[in-house]
Amino acid sequence: MRSSVLGSVWVLLLLLREPACQGDEVTSNTVNPCCYLPCQHTGVCVRYAEDEYECDCTRTGFNGKNCTVPEFWTRVRQLLKPSPDTVHYILTHFHWLWDIINYTFLRDVLMRLVLTVRSNLIPSPPTYNSNYDYLNWESYNNLSYYTRILPPVPKDCPTPLGVQGKAGLPDPELLVERLLKRRTFRPDPQGSNLMFAFFAQHFTHQFFKTYNRMGVGFTKALAHGVDAGHVYGDNLERQLKLRLHKDGKLKHQIIDGEMYPPTVVDAPVKMSYPPGIPPEGQMAIGQEVFGLLPGLGMYATLWLREHNRVCDILKAAHPTWDDEQLFQTSRLIIIGETIRIVIEEYVQHLSGYLLQLKFDPTLLFNSYFQYANRISLEFSQLYHWHPLMPDSFLINGDELSYGQFLFNTTVVTHYGIDKLVEAFSRQVAGQIGGGHNINPVVTNVAVRTIEESRQLRIQPFNEYRKRFNLKPYTSFRQFAGNEEIARDLEELYGDIDAVEFYPGLMLEATRSGAIFGESMVEMGAPFSLKGLLGNPICSPDYWKPSTFGGKVGFDIVNSASLKKLVCLNTRTCPHVAFRVPREEQSQSENDDSKVRTDEL
Amino acid sequence: MRSSVLGSVWVLLLLLREPACQGDEVTSNTVNPCCYLPCQHTGVCVRYAEDEYECDCTRTGFNGKNCTVPEFWTRVRQLLKPSPDTVHYILTHFHWLWDIINYTFLRDVLMRLVLTVRSNLIPSPPTYNSNYDYLNWESYNNLSYYTRILPPVPKDCPTPLGVQGKAGLPDPELLVERLLKRRTFRPDPQGSNLMFAFFAQHFTHQFFKTYNRMGVGFTKALAHGVDAGHVYGDNLERQLKLRLHKDGKLKHQIIDGEMYPPTVVDAPVKMSYPPGIPPEGQMAIGQEVFGLLPGLGMYATLWLREHNRVCDILKAAHPTWDDEQLFQTSRLIIIGETIRIVIEEYVQHLSGYLLQLKFDPTLLFNSYFQYANRISLEFSQLYHWHPLMPDSFLINGDELSYGQFLFNTTVVTHYGIDKLVEAFSRQVAGQIGGGHNINPVVTNVAVRTIEESRQLRIQPFNEYRKRFNLKPYTSFRQFAGNEEIARDLEELYGDIDAVEFYPGLMLEATRSGAIFGESMVEMGAPFSLKGLLGNPICSPDYWKPSTFGGKVGFDIVNSASLKKLVCLNTRTCPHVAFRVPREEQSQSENDDSKVRTDEL
Repeated sequence: MRSSVLGSVWVLLLLLREPACQGDEVTSNTVNPCCYLPCQHTGVCVRYAEDEYECDCTRTGFNGKNCTVPEFWTRVRQLLKPSPDTVHYILTHFHWLWDIINYTFLRDVLMRLVLTVRSNLIPSPPTYNSNYDYLNWESYNNLSYYTRILPPVPKDCPTPLGVQGKAGLPDPELLVERLLKRRTFRPDPQGSNLMFAFFAQHFTHQFFKTYNRMGVGFTKALAHGVDAGHVYGDNLERQLKLRLHKDGKLKHQIIDGEMYPPTVVDAPVKMSYPPGIPPEGQMAIGQEVFGLLPGLGMYATLWLREHNRVCDILKAAHPTWDDEQLFQTSRLIIIGETIRIVIEEYVQHLSGYLLQLKFDPTLLFNSYFQYANRISLEFSQLYHWHPLMPDSFLINGDELSYGQFLFNTTVVTHYGIDKLVEAFSRQVAGQIGGGHNINPVVTNVAVRTIEESRQLRIQPFNEYRKRFNLKPYTSFRQFAGNEEIARDLEELYGDIDAVEFYPGLMLEATRSGAIFGESMVEMGAPFSLKGLLGNPICSPDYWKPSTFGGKVGFDIVNSASLKKLVCLNTRTCPHVAFRVPREEQSQSENDDSKVRTDEL
Repeated sequence: MRSSVLGSVWVLLLLLREPACQGDEVTSNTVNPCCYLPCQHTGVCVRYAEDEYECDCTRTGFNGKNCTVPEFWTRVRQLLKPSPDTVHYILTHFHWLWDIINYTFLRDVLMRLVLTVRSNLIPSPPTYNSNYDYLNWESYNNLSYYTRILPPVPKDCPTPLGVQGKAGLPDPELLVERLLKRRTFRPDPQGSNLMFAFFAQHFTHQFFKTYNRMGVGFTKALAHGVDAGHVYGDNLERQLKLRLHKDGKLKHQIIDGEMYPPTVVDAPVKMSYPPGIPPEGQMAIGQEVFGLLPGLGMYATLWLREHNRVCDILKAAHPTWDDEQLFQTSRLIIIGETIRIVIEEYVQHLSGYLLQLKFDPTLLFNSYFQYANRISLEFSQLYHWHPLMPDSFLINGDELSYGQFLFNTTVVTHYGIDKLVEAFSRQVAGQIGGGHNINPVVTNVAVRTIEESRQLRIQPFNEYRKRFNLKPYTSFRQFAGNEEIARDLEELYGDIDAVEFYPGLMLEATRSGAIFGESMVEMGAPFSLKGLLGNPICSPDYWKPSTFGGKVGFDIVNSASLKKLVCLNTRTCPHVAFRVPREEQSQSENDDSKVRTDEL
């Protein structure tokens, strides 16, 4: 409960940080007063004359020059509101209590609370983007941008983060080398496995598709959410090439009597493979980069089989439906299944909550909630969870190095889906938070992430803490999990208020026994839940049986699970879960050194 | 109050119309049971086997095979709910009552009620479109489609409207000739003038932009609402060509010391002029078709001047702002001004309500409301208000024929904005409803509208009546304002349930002293208000001073009026209003024959 003791220190710091905007203390007229990030509690900084600004505190619940003076009801709310750590503690302890709650109406009440409290932190309609630190039509209307929760740091400020920290930021290579690169594989204490890791990657890459040709602040995934574009392609042309145009189905190939994605010979879509891999060795998948890892190929195959399975069921119920209606309705069912699995299994596992989460859109029907979503740059930054990746891949008794695993489509077809599911479900993933846990093969991604965040002038980690109702850290020791990280960070950044967003998320002390720290949860969950429930299928006009082809399809959505996804689409129904079985977990914790003997 | 007496007749008819979906009475297995449009009260028809269907009655408030059996609370609501005609009567009578209400909190309460009751009739997120009579991702995600409130009539039904009416529909040319073409100019009894008519056309053509190259169900205006794209262009490339790239302003030319849109020589954008008009004679305007009528050129000029005026004010307050921020913030102010003028003056005038309407987005902050909008095909059909157009244009003592008026940019610059405003404010427009009032010059538009509606299989007028909580008409005499129209319609359509959407709206009996009938109001108002309040600037995160450049800009939005738009941008501040002055109105009613002596 570190956050509760520091309230007064924080207020003091805030006061010290307020720029003397029109007084004698301003040494240079050219410093944009908004560089001080003066407006608190989501107040909006508007610059007037050179050294003059105003904070717009409308509906923030605060008043005063910098929106620091709470209104009466804000004060009451502040007093009554438990800290995020307290709430987390309650949600992850007291088994007996939750065993009762989960069987009463309180489950619904609490689930609704989780959804609304989290979603309300995400502005909708969206606000800023990487080109605009003020609201405007272009930024609202141009879907090629990732949106931003906080505007970029103004241009031409004294330091890269406004006025905090040093004039120059630490070299990203050095930062990653010293603080993020793996020394010894550290397994996730929550027991997340590779089945979880690949699900995360597969699922999120339907909406994280940075459009490098346009620039780092842009996305190719214009649907900004769960549209299953990773299965069907992010545009109509690609979709039509992937479809069989018969009975609603997707093209496929049969190997050893089992269904796999077609090769690009049969479905001529662009896939990102390194040069030298012939078309026959390239699987045609909705997401163009999913040839990278057999774990992604495995999920692509499972969803392909599921789509075609659903088509068969729908066709049996609706013999008059044409290919188009079978395809489109199956797609909505796939989207519904995805959202259910993500909330009830993926987020459930990740949160560690004992409250049994529930995908039930009707919970929000009487709340203020916008059925719309725009993917944030911050969400994309936050989701670089590369520490999950192991040092090698253990499949059916073999140990595969990255060199053997990457871009190797034959891994999928050689072992088959059943064996891959079994293997990935048994191999533990790395802990995301706490530092020193990114395999050297992928540290370059972390370097690029930090470079991107600087190019786009993302605000400091502590500003995001405040934006998500968390107390900003006041020292490196308070922030970090161990003395070494605290010391290194202090040396590199100088000022806790200058620590950057992504390093902050990765290096914050992890919660006891958890995969990452408080901030990743408190910032990630709002983006995630808003995106999931903001899907149109969750809206009152959509959430009904007919949308999914009647009871038969609605039932599929309402009973979807990871286990069904696997077992209805494989021969042997292998063991499947998002966490390793207890015995593997303890074993892997002992065998760290062994698992690390990869050959890269 | 015609609707109240017919409830039981209607229920009886509904029962008669229910298809015997699985019984002996089905004569041919090939008739799609959804052709009967069996599902009432927004129930969704889903086809199963050839002759089998189900109505999804989820959240309709009704049960039963065809969603015809009201639930208890539905019954209570039905009993308590006054008829639309009753509500309209109250809202347009009892001056003394409204004089009081308008000065109390009841104004806000009623305004909120108007907004929510109307908006709730429009599905959001949007549902069907012209290619899809079922919900699906493509229809949700592809912004090139106009959406549809009711799905198209299924393909291959016994008749064009399902099972109602004759196998063939009346020739559209004949229909327009006999029922819609003007005989004698009939002025609008509400006194709408040409200033109103041109405003309607100018305002709505930012979101009605049928993309003929893609097809009649598609639109080029992908923002689907009030984005001021008619001022700034509907795409970024066009916008950049129209901008001066200095101080946020738009390009312009100065004639006789007054500001006008530039020619396409200076702002090289595509404008739709007939061949032969040289670039110097073409005004460059956001909306490519606005060279058509000097009335549109007048409004384009006013908004151009207003935009540039606002830029000057913003620049004075924010000397540090760059061109981009001045432009973008002015654009949001222009959007805000537009919405205020539309609600508080345009809709106020059109409705005839004595309740003083109010543009106050905060009214909705605690309601269930989606800040999003998708333009409907039905809204586009409904807004073909060509009877407004006079037989000739009376400007500054001259009488201009259509031949002299159309595509004639020099009318704008020759007379100047002041004289045009004065003239258009004094000349009465035609009554929209009641038939026989479209000038022959534009009857072809009505013909095309009817043809479009058939190509896209728009459901019958009576189905839309039900969709908007109105009782369907049971006879031509009950529907039409006079015996001639009733007789002609009966001859042409045979069955009141087969009357088409657009002819229905235009030929329905007008309300006493009103511009059109009940249906136009009850169907048009929901589309209109949903679009206006669904604008992102009305959402809680946007509706604050900083969004508009601080108090100075927010004040402009909050005090905008038609009079200010004109008088702050003209030298002489001419008389301006959306209705003719009393004396002109009575005069024009006597002078019908004179006004009709146009030379076309």
